[in-house]
Amino acid sequence: MDRIPILTMGQFLLVTIQVDMHDRLAMALQDDLTTRITTSRAKGVLIDISSLEIVDSFIGRMLGNISSMARVLGAEAVVVGMQPAVAITLVELGLSLDGVHTALDVEKGMQLLRRYIGAEFEESLSDVDDPEN
Amino acid sequence: MDRIPILTMGQFLLVTIQVDMHDRLAMALQDDLTTRITTSRAKGVLIDISSLEIVDSFIGRMLGNISSMARVLGAEAVVVGMQPAVAITLVELGLSLDGVHTALDVEKGMQLLRRYIGAEFEESLSDVDDPEN
Repeated sequence: MDRIPILTMGQFLLVTIQVDMHDRLAMALQDDLTTRITTSRAKGVLIDISSLEIVDSFIGRMLGNISSMARVLGAEAVVVGMQPAVAITLVELGLSLDGVHTALDVEKGMQLLRRYIGAEFEESLSDVDDPEN
Repeated sequence: MDRIPILTMGQFLLVTIQVDMHDRLAMALQDDLTTRITTSRAKGVLIDISSLEIVDSFIGRMLGNISSMARVLGAEAVVVGMQPAVAITLVELGLSLDGVHTALDVEKGMQLLRRYIGAEFEESLSDVDDPEN
């Protein structure tokens, strides 16, 4: 297994991380995901980490990077499914996943993404409506 | 990794198989999935095999078993994301995945499931409407 699959679901992409991440796999995921955001014009990315029992600084940094890359390409990323024990360890280790949106599960993550997209859409509408702009 | 995560998406469950299946993992997946169908009252199961480069008779039988188990519990299962090379090998090996629904990707799989559920729903309505029954 040298690729993590990316599933398209409407205007969102879903990535389920099930295996231990190493450098090369993380790089491949970043490549694949940014390419897919561009080609599919996705507005949101859901990253499911419910299988991960450990999130170390490497994974934490990777999640942060992916979020930033998605944002630059006009999509929001949400990390979903974190196990309670992982949340405890993260805070104890002082890793607070700055700039990474999180949600309880895929459904909550989708709701969050829809809210972000809805807000953006309304903003762009008001830009058009407002004669001042 | 001794568990394959099962994601809930509305009335469907999504399983992404990314790792090599062995006996114990397949048994764990069957256990988890049947339990989740029962507790979540899911009407459909999507099994994504887009990461698999080989589907042998063991995996084929497992997919068949999962489909049958889901059906007994009132849910339909659809296998999605099969790679073209896998489809070729399957037919060449004489494994035709009898009784297993397949679809090109998650989105097509969801459409298929909605159609099955819709048809069932209409059937149950006509049972109620029809004074002959």
